[in-house]
Amino acid sequence: MTDDRDAGRATSAAPAVGPVVGMVGAGQLARMTYQAAIPLGIGFRVLADSPADSAAQVVPGTEVGDYHSLDDLLDFARGCDVLTFDHEHVPGEHLAALASAGVRVAPGGGALRYAQDKLGMREELTRLGLPCPRYTPVTTVGEVAAFAAATSWPVVLKAVSGGYDGRGVWVCETAEQAAQVLGHGIRLLAEEHVSFGRELAALVARSPHRQGAAYPVVQTVQRDGVCHEVLAPAPGLAPARAAEAQRLALTIADRLGVTGLLAVELFETGDGLLVNELAMRPHNSGHWTIEGARTSQFEQHLRAVLDLPLGAPQPAAPQVVMANIFGGTEPDLYARFTHVMAADPGVKVHLYGKTVRPGRKIGHVTALGTDATQLRDRALRAASYLGAGEEQGW
Amino acid sequence: MTDDRDAGRATSAAPAVGPVVGMVGAGQLARMTYQAAIPLGIGFRVLADSPADSAAQVVPGTEVGDYHSLDDLLDFARGCDVLTFDHEHVPGEHLAALASAGVRVAPGGGALRYAQDKLGMREELTRLGLPCPRYTPVTTVGEVAAFAAATSWPVVLKAVSGGYDGRGVWVCETAEQAAQVLGHGIRLLAEEHVSFGRELAALVARSPHRQGAAYPVVQTVQRDGVCHEVLAPAPGLAPARAAEAQRLALTIADRLGVTGLLAVELFETGDGLLVNELAMRPHNSGHWTIEGARTSQFEQHLRAVLDLPLGAPQPAAPQVVMANIFGGTEPDLYARFTHVMAADPGVKVHLYGKTVRPGRKIGHVTALGTDATQLRDRALRAASYLGAGEEQGW
Repeated sequence: MTDDRDAGRATSAAPAVGPVVGMVGAGQLARMTYQAAIPLGIGFRVLADSPADSAAQVVPGTEVGDYHSLDDLLDFARGCDVLTFDHEHVPGEHLAALASAGVRVAPGGGALRYAQDKLGMREELTRLGLPCPRYTPVTTVGEVAAFAAATSWPVVLKAVSGGYDGRGVWVCETAEQAAQVLGHGIRLLAEEHVSFGRELAALVARSPHRQGAAYPVVQTVQRDGVCHEVLAPAPGLAPARAAEAQRLALTIADRLGVTGLLAVELFETGDGLLVNELAMRPHNSGHWTIEGARTSQFEQHLRAVLDLPLGAPQPAAPQVVMANIFGGTEPDLYARFTHVMAADPGVKVHLYGKTVRPGRKIGHVTALGTDATQLRDRALRAASYLGAGEEQGW
Repeated sequence: MTDDRDAGRATSAAPAVGPVVGMVGAGQLARMTYQAAIPLGIGFRVLADSPADSAAQVVPGTEVGDYHSLDDLLDFARGCDVLTFDHEHVPGEHLAALASAGVRVAPGGGALRYAQDKLGMREELTRLGLPCPRYTPVTTVGEVAAFAAATSWPVVLKAVSGGYDGRGVWVCETAEQAAQVLGHGIRLLAEEHVSFGRELAALVARSPHRQGAAYPVVQTVQRDGVCHEVLAPAPGLAPARAAEAQRLALTIADRLGVTGLLAVELFETGDGLLVNELAMRPHNSGHWTIEGARTSQFEQHLRAVLDLPLGAPQPAAPQVVMANIFGGTEPDLYARFTHVMAADPGVKVHLYGKTVRPGRKIGHVTALGTDATQLRDRALRAASYLGAGEEQGW
C-alpha cells in the first residue's frame, strides 16, 4: 500500500537541502540548469535582466539586476554560496572584484577570460601547443590583406570580445568587406577560413578537485553560422579521433583552470582537429544530454561548481539527435503541440518561454534511438513544425 | 559557431507558451510535475497548505490556501485552465461545485470518487466484473468476526475514506484488535488478507479523447505497508500476466472515466491478479519513469489533463530500480552527497525539499541498467546512505 502523501508538514519555511547556486544571466541555460537543481534539492537563484527572461519565468529566486554593475553582482552574491554564469559577458574586473570580496566564482575570472577574449584564448592555446587556425590581431585593412596573402581569402574577422550589433564573426571575401568590419571600431582578430569536413564539439566538466568527465564527442550541424542540429555521438567518428577531441578538451579545462563545463567547438579537417571556440557553461551542443546521457550537462555543471563528484557522462541511447527550434511568423507554439505529439509520441520538446520572432532560437527537440538518419528526420520535422508551423528544411 | 545567447530580450513579461495547469496540493508529486511542465512551456501553479511545502519551495506560481475551502479552490481555479490534484482529499461536493462553476477538473469528481471512497471502488469494480479481494462494509465486531469466519483471520480493516491519525489500513489478527479500530468511529470496510506472491502496479494514462497509454508493469516492494522499492519492469513477470495487468488498468481507467494517470496496485496470487488500491495521479510506483521511460509519468499526466496526445511510455533502459529515501536522525542530507555520488556516479538522486524526520519519505533514487539484483543493490545503498547516513537494509 503505497502512500505518496505525508501527514506531517513542515511548519516553517524549509530551507533547500543544499547550498545555493546563483547564476548570472537568466536565459534558457539558466532555465534548464534550474530543472537539474530541483531534484538535487540545491537552492538556485538567477540574476535576470528582466522578469520576462527565460529562467526568470520559472525560478522563484529571481533577482532583476544589471550584470555590468558590480553593486548588483555583490548584492546578488550575498544570497548565494557560489556564483556561476549562463553567459560570458560579466566584465573581468568585476569577476576579480567579486573574488577579492570573498565570493566563490565558478568558473573563476582567470579561466573565464579565455572565453571572453578570443585573442587571449588563441595566444594561450598556441602557447600550450594546442591546434588552432592561423590567426593574427588586426587593426588595418593592410594587416588583413597581408594575412590573406599568407593564408587566402576569405578571411574570418572576429571581435576579440563582445561584438557589434549582435554579431561577433564576419567572413570577408574581399578587402572592401574587411574595411567595413574594421569601420565598426571594435578590436578584431583575423583567422584563416578553415576548410573543414565538419564541426565537432567536445564537452567536458572539471571540478576544483580536478576531477574531469568527458561526454561523447558530437557533430554540430550549422547553417549560416548558427547551430541547427547536434548528433550524439558524431556519426562515424574514428574512435582515436574522438579520444583525441576528449583529451584536447580535458587538457584545455585543466590548463586554463576551468571549474564547471567547458565546451570546445572543433573543426575536423583532413589534417586533424582545430579548436574553434570555447565556452565555459552549459552549451547548445550539450542539450541532448538531458535525456540522452546518464547525467545532463546542467546537473554536471552544478556538481562541478559545487565540487561534488561528477556524474556519469555515459549516453542513455545508442544515438541521440537534437534540433533547435527557430521561431517563424506564427507565435502560438502550443497550438502546434497536438500535431507534433500525435505524429511522434517519443520526441522530447523543450521550450524556453521566449516570445516567438522569426529566426529566434526558442527551444529544441530531442529524439533518441539507433539510426542517425531516421532520428534527424524526426527531430527536424518536429522542430521545424513547432517553430514555423510547417515541415521544412529537412 | 554556436551562439547560446540571444541578443533580443522580451520587453514585457512573456506569458507561458501554453495553458496553465493548477495542481491542488504541493507535495513531491506537484514538485516533480513542475519539472515536467517547464520544458513544455506550460504554466503551472500549485495550491499549497504552506509555503514550506515541497512544491511550494520551487514553483513561483504558488498560492497558499485550504483545499477544504470551496472559496479557496474557486480563487485558485481562476488563474488556471484546468485543475488537477497531487492527492485525493478534495471533498467530492467541492469537485461537483467546481464543475458546476465551469472549472475544468481532471480527473473529474465522478472518477475521483473511486479513489476517495474505497467501498464505492470495490462495489464498482465488482459490478464491472473486475477481480478484487473479498470485502464487506462493517460497523460492529460481530460483522468483522462473521467476515473472518467466511475468509479467515487476519482481516484487513480499511477506512472507507481518509483515515485515523494518519493511518487508513489495519491488519487485525483478532476480534479484540478489530474492536480497537472500530472504536475510532470512522467508516470501515473489511477485506480478506490476501496471501500474495508479490505486489505489482500497473500505471496507465487516459485522455479525454479516450487515448490510453500503458507503462510496463512494475513490482513494488513494501515493508510494513510502505513502498521501499520499485522494479521496472517486474522481474520475471509472464508476458501474458503483464498484458492482463495493463488491460485491467486501461479498462478501469476507461470505465471509471479517468482523465490523467491511473495507478492500479495489484496483488499477484497463485490464482491471478487482484486489485488492491487505485490512485488517480502520479504515483510512487511511477517515479522510475523520470529517467526510465521515454515520457515520465509527470509529463504524461500533464498531457492527459490537457487532452494532448499521450507520450511514448516505452522504457529507456532494460531494467530500472527506484528506491525511496527515508529520513534518519541526521538532517543534513547534502553532507552525504559526496559519498553517494563518488560511490556511484550513475545513480540519480531526487530530493523533495522536506525536513528530515525518522521514517519520513524525503526523496528517491533511481538506477538504470540491465541486472535487477545489481540495480537494487545500487539503489538501496544510495537511498539508505542518503536517508540515514549508513548503508543499511540491503
